[in-house]
Amino acid sequence: MTRINENFLKLSKSYLFSNIATKIKEYKALHPDKEIISLGIGDVTQPLSPASIEAMHAAVEEMTAADTFRGYGPEQGYPFLREAIVENDYRPRNIELDASEVFISDGAKSDTGNIGDLFSNKNSVGLTDPIYPVYIDSNVMNGRSGDLIDQKWNNISYYRCTAENDFIPTLPTQKTDIIYLCYPNNPTGTVLTKAELKKWVDYAITNQSLIFFDAAYEAFIQEEDIPHSIYEIEGAKQCAIEFRSFSKTAGFTGIRCGYTVIPKELKGFTEEGKPVSLNELWHRRQTTKFNGVSYITQRGAAAIYSKAGKEQVKQMVNLYMNNASFMKKELERFGLNVYGGENAPYLWIKTPNNISSWEFFDQMLCNANVVGTPGVGFGPSGEGYFRLTAFNTPENCKKAIERITKWLSKV
Amino acid sequence: MTRINENFLKLSKSYLFSNIATKIKEYKALHPDKEIISLGIGDVTQPLSPASIEAMHAAVEEMTAADTFRGYGPEQGYPFLREAIVENDYRPRNIELDASEVFISDGAKSDTGNIGDLFSNKNSVGLTDPIYPVYIDSNVMNGRSGDLIDQKWNNISYYRCTAENDFIPTLPTQKTDIIYLCYPNNPTGTVLTKAELKKWVDYAITNQSLIFFDAAYEAFIQEEDIPHSIYEIEGAKQCAIEFRSFSKTAGFTGIRCGYTVIPKELKGFTEEGKPVSLNELWHRRQTTKFNGVSYITQRGAAAIYSKAGKEQVKQMVNLYMNNASFMKKELERFGLNVYGGENAPYLWIKTPNNISSWEFFDQMLCNANVVGTPGVGFGPSGEGYFRLTAFNTPENCKKAIERITKWLSKV
Repeated sequence: MTRINENFLKLSKSYLFSNIATKIKEYKALHPDKEIISLGIGDVTQPLSPASIEAMHAAVEEMTAADTFRGYGPEQGYPFLREAIVENDYRPRNIELDASEVFISDGAKSDTGNIGDLFSNKNSVGLTDPIYPVYIDSNVMNGRSGDLIDQKWNNISYYRCTAENDFIPTLPTQKTDIIYLCYPNNPTGTVLTKAELKKWVDYAITNQSLIFFDAAYEAFIQEEDIPHSIYEIEGAKQCAIEFRSFSKTAGFTGIRCGYTVIPKELKGFTEEGKPVSLNELWHRRQTTKFNGVSYITQRGAAAIYSKAGKEQVKQMVNLYMNNASFMKKELERFGLNVYGGENAPYLWIKTPNNISSWEFFDQMLCNANVVGTPGVGFGPSGEGYFRLTAFNTPENCKKAIERITKWLSKV
Repeated sequence: MTRINENFLKLSKSYLFSNIATKIKEYKALHPDKEIISLGIGDVTQPLSPASIEAMHAAVEEMTAADTFRGYGPEQGYPFLREAIVENDYRPRNIELDASEVFISDGAKSDTGNIGDLFSNKNSVGLTDPIYPVYIDSNVMNGRSGDLIDQKWNNISYYRCTAENDFIPTLPTQKTDIIYLCYPNNPTGTVLTKAELKKWVDYAITNQSLIFFDAAYEAFIQEEDIPHSIYEIEGAKQCAIEFRSFSKTAGFTGIRCGYTVIPKELKGFTEEGKPVSLNELWHRRQTTKFNGVSYITQRGAAAIYSKAGKEQVKQMVNLYMNNASFMKKELERFGLNVYGGENAPYLWIKTPNNISSWEFFDQMLCNANVVGTPGVGFGPSGEGYFRLTAFNTPENCKKAIERITKWLSKV
């Protein structure tokens, strides 16, 4: 009898965004004439940069002749892309990495999910709350979460981030082995300064903890003094893995590319306390259970580091950040409390009159035909909040805000 | 202290093909003038089909405008590809599948590795020996393998396949929960008839076992009565997951696409014996820890099902199978015992004079400048055998055979 991993049964049957998709589908079936604007799932809308397009056409063309054809590439990614990342994403910030510390993948979602393979189930896990659901769900699947009691998994520590503490999480009081941090934050759009992030790095070094730092949104940072990489903080190479994505930076949600940095000096430990290179473990995991990213995709990703590519990507980021800025200003002018949106493409809105975030979702869908994401979908501290993304077109963002404010002014 | 998954430490430090790559590199450093022909790693050499090229260019072009741009696709793959698979790979063989039973991925290696997430570590595992190393290594990582004793993991059952039993594995005498079968087989290139495969399906149904059927090489089958899919066998939908790949069929080793079929009627069980849909579990795994395959890749894959695409892919398969046929004939004429190569692009050669497979590797590299894969790299029953692939150009295959026979005639 083939027995399943029963941890899967602990999960609610569907993923947050599937639930939302179902609600939209049901609404559309009843109201086929309504045009719905989605500021829900964090998907981009702008076409790819011409630099990436050109590079991908060229890569497709290479596949037409035997002498330029590319078969299996290195599982860890082509040197041209790993080196471009080191050169462009890290060196200008005075972070020295070797290309062998950068692992190309099909996206940060896969890597933040699969990284759990490397670690014992005995580790304690902590994360800021609210948070990207994949961190938690992948730990539930792995058997690290314990049981769900009052909306929280009892083997996971939740670091509450709400308006009350300015969305700045408090350091754990107990020893925690693995800590997930995502900054700029999804879903709240808030950031940590270098000084705040340093507290976490110091904690991790002192406690021999490991930080999983998800920097998928670093390209959206506008202000000085906000770290783009955790390795800007001294000592972080001893205690942090960094995840990055081309999805939001370069509009690659449909192309699938990201990367993970595991410095060579970063160690995990055996039960007996023997240090083991995490770079080597991940290398082994990826060579065994992964076979690299499409050559075409990697060429497209590398193109954003060309002179033209950089400029084009910057324009894309600016367009989304202009959306965020506009929406934030308008909603604040209307009297709502809006967080984030300054260094991240997400607005985190306090629901008016303390209504629940799902109630706000339903009302906004029905009355404004705008879709967002209920804050509680990201964890218990998200209750009473609502996420809007800035990834739509300027026209749709404007229209959405008009509809939302018109609806709310009637309530 | 962050503790690692110590199962990783049980694995030998490097993967078979990394070892081979190192040996080649060392030889090249000492003999920079020598031209080496690789018939080692199963990588293809022919350019992609024009149909796939055209489809991928068109897909890249769609990414240039907001109204045709594609962001996140369904994690399970686009309906156009899932439906084309059902329609072309299964319906003509009288296998009825729903598109929701087909999950698109970045390749069979990822899926055969990740599928382990779904199952309890208490399951017993069995596999034919020799075999594709990923099946074993991913079970070692998961903690299902036990310890390595005399080249075998003591919690894994090995079904010996050698010339002595015509490479037909004997059914397990003890209950085994999960059984890996790969047919046409990598590395031996041998196949099972429908009657032989039926014995395994019947065993699995009787014992409530699950078969992981890797059919990555089905496109190379030339003979009648050899099943392309395990679902050609009655009852297999109750007991088998099938893995397929575009890597070898369509030359997609560098493009990365494969798929996994999990019929809705296929169940795993809780400890208490409650049946659970494996289709639903995999759906949950993939939506949580995976984010779909590049749209461009999926368009390229779907194009092989067009009329032109089918013809072009068939020509590619024929070219490789002509290589296999030529090499087999020549080596047999020379007096070697050669297996496989009739329904698969792999030749499985008995090493002459019973020398070890690594010794044969070293000698062939040094004396013929041809690279193959030592049989023992695929498991203990591979000792005394050697794998050559037919994936090179006809010219190189011819040259390689000339060199090998010239070298061997001198020994």
